[in-house]
Amino acid sequence: MTQLHGGVVPPVCTPLTSQRDLDVPSLERLTAHLLDAGVHGLFVTGSTGEVAYLPDQLRQRALEVVAGVAAGQVPVLAGIIDTTTPRVLEHARAAKALGADALVATAPFYAPTHPSEFPGHFRAIRAAVDLPLLAYDIPASVGSKLPVEVVVELAEDGTLAGLKDSSGDLDGLRAVLERTDRAVFHCYSGSETLADLGLFLGAHGLVPGIGNLDPHGYVRLYHAATRGDWDAARAEQLRLRKLFQLIHVGDGRMGRYSSAIGAFKEGLAALGVIANPVTSEPMIPLDDTERAAVRAHLAEAGLL
Amino acid sequence: MTQLHGGVVPPVCTPLTSQRDLDVPSLERLTAHLLDAGVHGLFVTGSTGEVAYLPDQLRQRALEVVAGVAAGQVPVLAGIIDTTTPRVLEHARAAKALGADALVATAPFYAPTHPSEFPGHFRAIRAAVDLPLLAYDIPASVGSKLPVEVVVELAEDGTLAGLKDSSGDLDGLRAVLERTDRAVFHCYSGSETLADLGLFLGAHGLVPGIGNLDPHGYVRLYHAATRGDWDAARAEQLRLRKLFQLIHVGDGRMGRYSSAIGAFKEGLAALGVIANPVTSEPMIPLDDTERAAVRAHLAEAGLL
Amino acid sequence: MTQLHGGVVPPVCTPLTSQRDLDVPSLERLTAHLLDAGVHGLFVTGSTGEVAYLPDQLRQRALEVVAGVAAGQVPVLAGIIDTTTPRVLEHARAAKALGADALVATAPFYAPTHPSEFPGHFRAIRAAVDLPLLAYDIPASVGSKLPVEVVVELAEDGTLAGLKDSSGDLDGLRAVLERTDRAVFHCYSGSETLADLGLFLGAHGLVPGIGNLDPHGYVRLYHAATRGDWDAARAEQLRLRKLFQLIHVGDGRMGRYSSAIGAFKEGLAALGVIANPVTSEPMIPLDDTERAAVRAHLAEAGLL
Amino acid sequence: MTQLHGGVVPPVCTPLTSQRDLDVPSLERLTAHLLDAGVHGLFVTGSTGEVAYLPDQLRQRALEVVAGVAAGQVPVLAGIIDTTTPRVLEHARAAKALGADALVATAPFYAPTHPSEFPGHFRAIRAAVDLPLLAYDIPASVGSKLPVEVVVELAEDGTLAGLKDSSGDLDGLRAVLERTDRAVFHCYSGSETLADLGLFLGAHGLVPGIGNLDPHGYVRLYHAATRGDWDAARAEQLRLRKLFQLIHVGDGRMGRYSSAIGAFKEGLAALGVIANPVTSEPMIPLDDTERAAVRAHLAEAGLL
Repeated sequence: MTQLHGGVVPPVCTPLTSQRDLDVPSLERLTAHLLDAGVHGLFVTGSTGEVAYLPDQLRQRALEVVAGVAAGQVPVLAGIIDTTTPRVLEHARAAKALGADALVATAPFYAPTHPSEFPGHFRAIRAAVDLPLLAYDIPASVGSKLPVEVVVELAEDGTLAGLKDSSGDLDGLRAVLERTDRAVFHCYSGSETLADLGLFLGAHGLVPGIGNLDPHGYVRLYHAATRGDWDAARAEQLRLRKLFQLIHVGDGRMGRYSSAIGAFKEGLAALGVIANPVTSEPMIPLDDTERAAVRAHLAEAGLL
Repeated sequence: MTQLHGGVVPPVCTPLTSQRDLDVPSLERLTAHLLDAGVHGLFVTGSTGEVAYLPDQLRQRALEVVAGVAAGQVPVLAGIIDTTTPRVLEHARAAKALGADALVATAPFYAPTHPSEFPGHFRAIRAAVDLPLLAYDIPASVGSKLPVEVVVELAEDGTLAGLKDSSGDLDGLRAVLERTDRAVFHCYSGSETLADLGLFLGAHGLVPGIGNLDPHGYVRLYHAATRGDWDAARAEQLRLRKLFQLIHVGDGRMGRYSSAIGAFKEGLAALGVIANPVTSEPMIPLDDTERAAVRAHLAEAGLL
Repeated sequence: MTQLHGGVVPPVCTPLTSQRDLDVPSLERLTAHLLDAGVHGLFVTGSTGEVAYLPDQLRQRALEVVAGVAAGQVPVLAGIIDTTTPRVLEHARAAKALGADALVATAPFYAPTHPSEFPGHFRAIRAAVDLPLLAYDIPASVGSKLPVEVVVELAEDGTLAGLKDSSGDLDGLRAVLERTDRAVFHCYSGSETLADLGLFLGAHGLVPGIGNLDPHGYVRLYHAATRGDWDAARAEQLRLRKLFQLIHVGDGRMGRYSSAIGAFKEGLAALGVIANPVTSEPMIPLDDTERAAVRAHLAEAGLL
Repeated sequence: MTQLHGGVVPPVCTPLTSQRDLDVPSLERLTAHLLDAGVHGLFVTGSTGEVAYLPDQLRQRALEVVAGVAAGQVPVLAGIIDTTTPRVLEHARAAKALGADALVATAPFYAPTHPSEFPGHFRAIRAAVDLPLLAYDIPASVGSKLPVEVVVELAEDGTLAGLKDSSGDLDGLRAVLERTDRAVFHCYSGSETLADLGLFLGAHGLVPGIGNLDPHGYVRLYHAATRGDWDAARAEQLRLRKLFQLIHVGDGRMGRYSSAIGAFKEGLAALGVIANPVTSEPMIPLDDTERAAVRAHLAEAGLL
């Protein structure tokens, strides 16, 4: 098992065939593309990986493929995203069997769950499957924020090995960092556009969706921050913020998520990394104008 | 296949063993208990049925058991609750194979989905599985409200056969009722406490969680409304509102949902319908004081 | 002082001149128009009266004019809408001096205020000014819902004489009605489109914005409900729901409120009641197409 | 008129007498206390100044007192906080007459206002009163976020001279900073706990409520950031974060705002700056235990 050590851990896109099966060769190429750029880990079946759209078998196969290519070079984190404990446990067991090095679980969703019930959820996962467990704080998807108190309590008793923070609440992230032992509890920022701030606050790593397209940029940003060169980190971040505007190509005609995932996949196809930019149902696919706009963004960023 | 015809359609609780397997004899007794009271349908694997907690096999077995006992006497509606289209389709296919008479699907959740993407979701389900499809509007769980326009559009093109409205938005329900053909499009109110208002507005039926405990009450309320005796309907509703207070027995010590589901199951155990009031993880179980409070509520309502 | 006794209490629009001063003759005609229709009270400087836009002097003059025309025939309720207690007290004192028969105050807003602080707010108003005080529950404007517990506590100790419920929460309204003494505590529904439901639940009166345009309709609805003729009440409500669609004439080009207030005033101008449909800054005025659409709605409703 | 030039601009508390009149000598001492610490401006009648509680005359007198003590040494910004344009204009005119160097206005509140109506609001203020105008983005109080597009548009056409950002949305602040001319458009962060991040992003200044108690700390933080010494800035911020915990002394017994304002005023009284820690109605006052806790926090921070 490969240990977590912070750094850049992109949430790997899930390439699909035109029939919406897993496109295995494309996923292999994407994994290699990320490893070649020097990323420090891989996060499979996260939100960017369309986890909420993937049937169980497809999720499992995606993890298997990425773990196979990674082959222990970097840790592979598996998102075990489902509504509540009993369903999450099934994903956790499958992920361990397929080679995950760590698990990433959200608070329960759909079923209204009180913060007093969150500890039981994470403890049940940790007890059932012996892998490092990260809490995934993503209120926009699950409808509730993980309170700082809960994260700290579960860090202190060893339930949680870390936090992936996609809450946008930098004050909360800072509070967790202040109150946990950074030698054993690892925090990852899920922000593409404020990644430098996360590192400034002491976060160990980054999980940027657009890192699929420009992993080198985030690796540079991370290294600049690590050596305390904040001007370089900020300059790299500003460049990446500009590139990130490509997520808006479909605005007005579809939801933000369809636009963003569509743009990531279109970009990966334009770069020759994946074969097909198809996204899951019911996302609205980009049209030709929007696809051209994605390529223009990549060209402007010097990636194409 | 048994046709939907409105009326009282309780969302059937899912009895569990102490090991949290499906308690089949208890579920058979619960189904018979509801049928004996004259309910007009059964809604399996809904929110009250702890659907978000049940692994796929448990969901399927619950549907199979209820459909077996119902044996065509009343229609069995199956909740096919999952994050997005491809995952929901798997539940839809399984439900049809196991004897569901109709399917009930929410808008996508977890993955941020724009209303412009909702029609594609429901159309894909309807196209894949030939059963009447009801939209389940439950913003508290899925984070978005089904717009009236979307429901009407999908009613008009035959995608949807009905609506289960748990939004609490009676204005929206009324607008849907005004704009759809009540001979072919059926609306069900998911409210326990304003069920009379739903019927006053013209809703075809009711899906009351506490109908597990007092199905006779809701059947009486429904029949009073059907014959236009609003005073009787309102009086029955006031009685049921009082009983419904039992959902608060755990307030302050746990979430509202844990308290409500715990109270329903405790009540069913007290009535001798199910063997064990156990609920799914990570719900906090009722303690002895809270359990006694549930029984006191039932006694006061003359049910015990 | 004229006593509150339920019934139809329209929130009176505030006619303005082209210079956005109070248009006194128009307000006098509007008041007479409402009284002629048999309304049971008048609510001045409410949300429909653009209270949030009116400088103090304009608010005071509007109250003075309406109270003058009403001349004790029906009670005049004055909205004393401001951010928190000390500012609200100033409006309360002025309103009493100008002839208000009752006061209507919201929970504090802008300053984040906890429900534990609401009782002190209403008690301070009641202690300072000896007029019946109604709580105005309008979470869409103030950002917080008045809890049922708080309303009941303040009804029981005599602080509040009633509730104007614009929360849309019929369950909460029903709970207040169940738990207060209807002989002394009066509830008004602020809904235009579910007014019949409010009366069905036992509310004493209605405060419908579009009652400015069609007071006869709401008076008919109220009388039908009072005599228990729910079919007639519902039929009238359906007609009024259709008329209410005119609030959407500006949708897409402006906010909902600008569209609604603009439509009410345009309609009053079309009916010859007020001279000028001008609304306050920064509301966007209706354009010619939208104004024509308002008149078409009135014509279809047989009002023009 | 004294020009804005960034830096530390505390939102000045408003000391009250036991009768809740303005305590002029205390406000004079508080102003001097802040000037002595080297602050770069003073923000009167902001949220921390209890603006939402202050009657017009009290607001005006507070501005007059602070402007008198400041006497042109630093710019005095006046919050002109009210529901919508016509009411805000009255505050704007009064503030100019009383010596304000700049005005700070929020988006309209209470009256539901669409973003398309925000530009008209700010343009009307700017047109009516010739003072630099800052937009105050405080969604927690007004219920809507100022969109980046709107701020940029109003910066470009000269309506706005700056932004006070209390939204907590650092991504939005960064976007505004990227798209405006920093020589003429000034951004202030309203965060006490992420002030270093705001400066890291390029914000010109800070408006920290707890700067009333420890202005030296924020001045040090600001100077460290200005010279690019991020380690020193971060260390100072960590110290101030710890001090800021005193806002929680009343948690559980009152709202967060009552607790925070109560703590600031108790602290100022403990420091001998103001005579009386009284806060406005209906805020719940701190009890003796909570007051002692505030003093313990100050002692721990070396301020007492």
